[in-house]
Amino acid sequence: MGDSSVRSEVRVVIYGVGAIGGRVARLLLRKRGIRIVGAIDSSPKKVGKDLGEVLGIGRKLGVVVSNDVEKVLDETKPHIAMHTTTSFLRDVYPQLMTLIKHGVHVVSTCEELSYPYIVDPKLAENLDKAAKKHGVVVLGTGINPGFLMDTLVIALTGVCQEVRRIEVRRIINAATRRLPFQKKIGAGLTIEEFREKIKSGAITGHVGLEQSIAMIADALGWKLDKIKVEEVKPIIAEKPVESREIKVESGSVAGLRQCAYGIMDGKPIITLDFQAYIGAEDEHDAIKIDGKPEINERITPCIHGDLGTVAIAVNMIPKVLKATPGLKTMKDLPVPSATPEDISLCL
Amino acid sequence: MGDSSVRSEVRVVIYGVGAIGGRVARLLLRKRGIRIVGAIDSSPKKVGKDLGEVLGIGRKLGVVVSNDVEKVLDETKPHIAMHTTTSFLRDVYPQLMTLIKHGVHVVSTCEELSYPYIVDPKLAENLDKAAKKHGVVVLGTGINPGFLMDTLVIALTGVCQEVRRIEVRRIINAATRRLPFQKKIGAGLTIEEFREKIKSGAITGHVGLEQSIAMIADALGWKLDKIKVEEVKPIIAEKPVESREIKVESGSVAGLRQCAYGIMDGKPIITLDFQAYIGAEDEHDAIKIDGKPEINERITPCIHGDLGTVAIAVNMIPKVLKATPGLKTMKDLPVPSATPEDISLCL
Repeated sequence: MGDSSVRSEVRVVIYGVGAIGGRVARLLLRKRGIRIVGAIDSSPKKVGKDLGEVLGIGRKLGVVVSNDVEKVLDETKPHIAMHTTTSFLRDVYPQLMTLIKHGVHVVSTCEELSYPYIVDPKLAENLDKAAKKHGVVVLGTGINPGFLMDTLVIALTGVCQEVRRIEVRRIINAATRRLPFQKKIGAGLTIEEFREKIKSGAITGHVGLEQSIAMIADALGWKLDKIKVEEVKPIIAEKPVESREIKVESGSVAGLRQCAYGIMDGKPIITLDFQAYIGAEDEHDAIKIDGKPEINERITPCIHGDLGTVAIAVNMIPKVLKATPGLKTMKDLPVPSATPEDISLCL
Repeated sequence: MGDSSVRSEVRVVIYGVGAIGGRVARLLLRKRGIRIVGAIDSSPKKVGKDLGEVLGIGRKLGVVVSNDVEKVLDETKPHIAMHTTTSFLRDVYPQLMTLIKHGVHVVSTCEELSYPYIVDPKLAENLDKAAKKHGVVVLGTGINPGFLMDTLVIALTGVCQEVRRIEVRRIINAATRRLPFQKKIGAGLTIEEFREKIKSGAITGHVGLEQSIAMIADALGWKLDKIKVEEVKPIIAEKPVESREIKVESGSVAGLRQCAYGIMDGKPIITLDFQAYIGAEDEHDAIKIDGKPEINERITPCIHGDLGTVAIAVNMIPKVLKATPGLKTMKDLPVPSATPEDISLCL
């Protein structure tokens, strides 16, 4: 790494102080060897306030949330930005370009950035070129996409002499998640309301299944004919179920299910099955690899999405700081690992 | 990578044509974009014979097994050596140095090489320096050590905000493994015979628990007080059990168990529990991480050791060819992944 100052203290900007960005900031505050030097958000409710106040941690941090990106970057000269604004590549592209041009590394939880080549190869190429030119690394990560349905799958194929078919399933009991997540999956709606919200785009389903499939295929050198993402389907409560916030009547929507397939020679050789609903009794993350050897792997209960996304975003900081410049995906970087309290120990 | 010829065809030497080396060679023969150009072994039974004959594949390969390492390397100019001779760093050190000095990358299944720093830091440093000087990568890998009890554990901590304690268990039903493995774990012996063979060094237990613990600790930035490897204990058959080759009476030794601990502040914060015995009904690989979030992961049945070791050794070839020079461990390289039939697709 050209910049040796990073080893004494990593200077980080929080770009997006929402549900995930706020949790990222709180985790970073528990670490040593890293300092939050700036915070960016567009919300009028947050701009001008001290970050500590926005985070609700009961103390000021001396970092004022700003919507003036250029000014924050010019004044704080961060090594890296923790970027958590939206799920879509086209929306984050100009934001990432600004960071890159300021010589700032990026860890982003933008789902489409986890494997941007299938969203818009031209934008991905531009990001890669710009990152190389300015000597920085840009990474999209998260628990899913970013780990459970792609990186972990890829790692497990590492012990296979042959891989014929892959099936990945994630079943989340939405009752254990925050309310916005429960609403996002349509919990408590009637079937008709659910269909309307799908139509209007108010419910989008999980963003990232395509990215996960494309990343697995790329890692394995598989040339897929296509990636097929099925429409989001409601999961109907067979009996009344509830979370702390939402009661679901029998016959109403408890959540949703979405499947996606990587197709080769007309057959699905990668199947991802994502289910999130209130009342799921068998929460788990399962990977089945039909190969030599066959692998049946299961994590029980499934890993909590928010906890895991915040963790892996922070944990990838040292890997990003040490990588060669360019646009990276999780498969290009060293095996992820938890960071110690003092982050400088792994720099 | 300096040498672009590797992208058209990787030239590989098989160094050690034993149980594992032979299987590595057979797997490589099923791949395209890679060619076995030489084979090294010290056994008089193999030297001078065609590799195809030694492998028992019913055809000649035009590669004669030789015990003249220098000559093979000078004449065949390999990019990489698949090295499978012994488990111990001091034994492989001169072999590795010869490979390095000939500018040959190394993937080795030497257990102690998976994390050599705790065996002999001086030798490890010499290997690293020499590898850098000659522009090559040296990697020790395998299923265990190399993946199940270290790399996979490390990868799973990647989604943790905090890790307090790690427990890893591998339970192998030895009846499904080759006879030398069954013998190596003492299956069929009386307790007295077992103790004698432990004493004489004829049974050594599993080599690599220390390496796995040290690699995990390093990845997490944990400074262990010490690594404690318990003595190998026999697992006694409670009822008669048998493999195809060995019958174990009730009260005799069915196999062995070995535990190892990474100790910090007087407490075991990493526990590895390795069990291999005939009649194990609950074969599995389990990882439990006490952290935030808690992770309970299980692979059922456990991954077959030989299959997995051969796979991961071959699968790491592209990662080694693309890495920066030096002595590497699995935690330093990108996430492992299965190689396609045509290995050039991932170069």
